[in-house]
Amino acid sequence: MSYSTDPRAARSREAILGAARELLVGEGPGAVTHQRVAQQAGVGRATVYRHWTRPESLLLEVMSGADLPYFKEPAAPLRPWLHAQLRAMADELLAPPVAAVALTLMQAAIWDPQIAERRDASVRTINERLGAAVAAAVARGEVETTAERPEITSMLIGPIVYHTAMQQSRVSDAVLDRLIAGIGTWRD
Amino acid sequence: MSYSTDPRAARSREAILGAARELLVGEGPGAVTHQRVAQQAGVGRATVYRHWTRPESLLLEVMSGADLPYFKEPAAPLRPWLHAQLRAMADELLAPPVAAVALTLMQAAIWDPQIAERRDASVRTINERLGAAVAAAVARGEVETTAERPEITSMLIGPIVYHTAMQQSRVSDAVLDRLIAGIGTWRD
Repeated sequence: MSYSTDPRAARSREAILGAARELLVGEGPGAVTHQRVAQQAGVGRATVYRHWTRPESLLLEVMSGADLPYFKEPAAPLRPWLHAQLRAMADELLAPPVAAVALTLMQAAIWDPQIAERRDASVRTINERLGAAVAAAVARGEVETTAERPEITSMLIGPIVYHTAMQQSRVSDAVLDRLIAGIGTWRD
Repeated sequence: MSYSTDPRAARSREAILGAARELLVGEGPGAVTHQRVAQQAGVGRATVYRHWTRPESLLLEVMSGADLPYFKEPAAPLRPWLHAQLRAMADELLAPPVAAVALTLMQAAIWDPQIAERRDASVRTINERLGAAVAAAVARGEVETTAERPEITSMLIGPIVYHTAMQQSRVSDAVLDRLIAGIGTWRD
């Protein structure tokens, strides 16, 4: 894609991204074509091509454009902070658009190495953030654990993704407490 | 699709399903078209149409044709049986074709009500089987739990799906033990 300082180009870029997001959420990744996006954004098809030569690159940008907002600034004590973070994640995943993008990224990564790279980067980011938060809590004597970073992530996030995406129901606070209790032996 | 007692029709049906499965696994759901499937199966395109009028119905059958082999016959005590069942599921999900079909089903269900029904049926089946196994163990005094059926499923299976699909690594036996420990208070 091209980065331009022309404000008109920046506006059309935003309009195209917004339209692509709407199509993805409403009709699935197959709807994110140059023609449909141009129509929806109210711009010419040539404008879409100018920004994104291939529809896949547009789709990829829409799907994985945002930085993950989770587990960014760990607070002490760990338990209530973790609960609040997981609560936010679970509630957001319950929104169909968010679930759609998450599952599409997971699925598309199987066949698309570029998307697989993005998935791996997201996984690494979450593992690092959660791992650092848990390590700090271990250092403060709040919890003891022998679980590795990727395991902790899977044990905390896996049930939330499964429960919201497969069972389409809200993860209760009691379940969040169980998940947090399960990552180690808590002192408090 | 048509069910025929003609053995030749049954053979071509099997060849078509096998070809569709290969295309799905190798190139993703987009490759499962009448033309590609006919080519791969070595049959005429009209033959594919005769069995499946729409490519979606063929894809759906390939993706969700098999009955889930998990949690079928609960054994006592619960804990080692559950461990063996989860071990088998985790190891199978690690195979790229199985992960591909599982994630494709999860993702396609967002936009396709027919696939959503299949997903819901799978979820119900697993909830019932796991729920019955846990209820029997509770009755035997092995474990106490306040967790609901869908929560137990999410807590056991969610981390396995996430760990294998997102992190692409084997779920260790230690993690399986943690997951099982987390569903309630064990007496043994």
